[in-house]
Amino acid sequence: MTLNTQRIIEPESLNAASFAPFGEVIHPSTAKKEWAINDGNTTRFHDVANLVPGDGGRVIASIFRAQPRELPFTVTMMERHPLASQAFIPLSGQPWLVVVAPPGSAPQAADLRLFVCRPNQGVNYAPGVWHHPILALDAVSDFLVLDRDGPGDNCDIITLDEPAVILPVLSQGR
Amino acid sequence: MTLNTQRIIEPESLNAASFAPFGEVIHPSTAKKEWAINDGNTTRFHDVANLVPGDGGRVIASIFRAQPRELPFTVTMMERHPLASQAFIPLSGQPWLVVVAPPGSAPQAADLRLFVCRPNQGVNYAPGVWHHPILALDAVSDFLVLDRDGPGDNCDIITLDEPAVILPVLSQGR
Repeated sequence: MTLNTQRIIEPESLNAASFAPFGEVIHPSTAKKEWAINDGNTTRFHDVANLVPGDGGRVIASIFRAQPRELPFTVTMMERHPLASQAFIPLSGQPWLVVVAPPGSAPQAADLRLFVCRPNQGVNYAPGVWHHPILALDAVSDFLVLDRDGPGDNCDIITLDEPAVILPVLSQGR
Repeated sequence: MTLNTQRIIEPESLNAASFAPFGEVIHPSTAKKEWAINDGNTTRFHDVANLVPGDGGRVIASIFRAQPRELPFTVTMMERHPLASQAFIPLSGQPWLVVVAPPGSAPQAADLRLFVCRPNQGVNYAPGVWHHPILALDAVSDFLVLDRDGPGDNCDIITLDEPAVILPVLSQGR
């Protein structure tokens, strides 16, 4: 594989600031408010994702069971949900990858951003944010997914004009 | 402690049938529908909880960080959320306990049911179902919580006329 002739997506660490153009990081550290409940036995990190079911929709919870991908991985397509947000919360204690591009017209390879997610970091994609389907690593991984049930077509898929490659990055992210 | 003079809550294993009077078990095995997505790389276990935000409410996602409890544990109170459902999905890979009683008038100790939850089993309490606050075990444990943001008083708390005791039960549930 002649990687040096292919476009490489540089990995970034995931945090509230770096991910702000795309939605929210779901993690206690990103909560806007927190307080003690249950006589002090529990801390509530409140409302950590802007869940948007969209007009006529409702928020539903599902579980996605993802097969792990091998790196290097070539990104050839992206998708978006124009009507509603979509949140992914890892349940299997494995790191994972997020590839996103800003909402708007179909992204080019140069628009892609790669975030290396720790096993306890979820994300919520704002409506219309382009993203790659789940990229689990190392093992079959379950994710709780919060998205929309409702009428209308809520998935657009595009093929990139030029693919982009994710190199093995996990030593940087773990 | 003279346990033999106290009311003991017998542990039950958690599954869709045993928990049906109280809500849903959140686990791939309880999904009503599942199908392959992402070119076969992912299975979607669809809509695994009946999330009810209630009139004028919206579903929000929060993280609860629970301190572990020691067994035996004496249950002295219960609470309910009359307006909306409340779901708990464990994120820390630890077993945990659920104590519930049917919706309706304030429960008595004899009404309590104890479910031993595996680390990958969440639950969704239907509106009005009496439940004890989170009972984490062994270690500080995070839970994703899906409940209501909206107007009105959505929490009733009662003190049991007679307490009830949870004995060390985990060898049965793990």
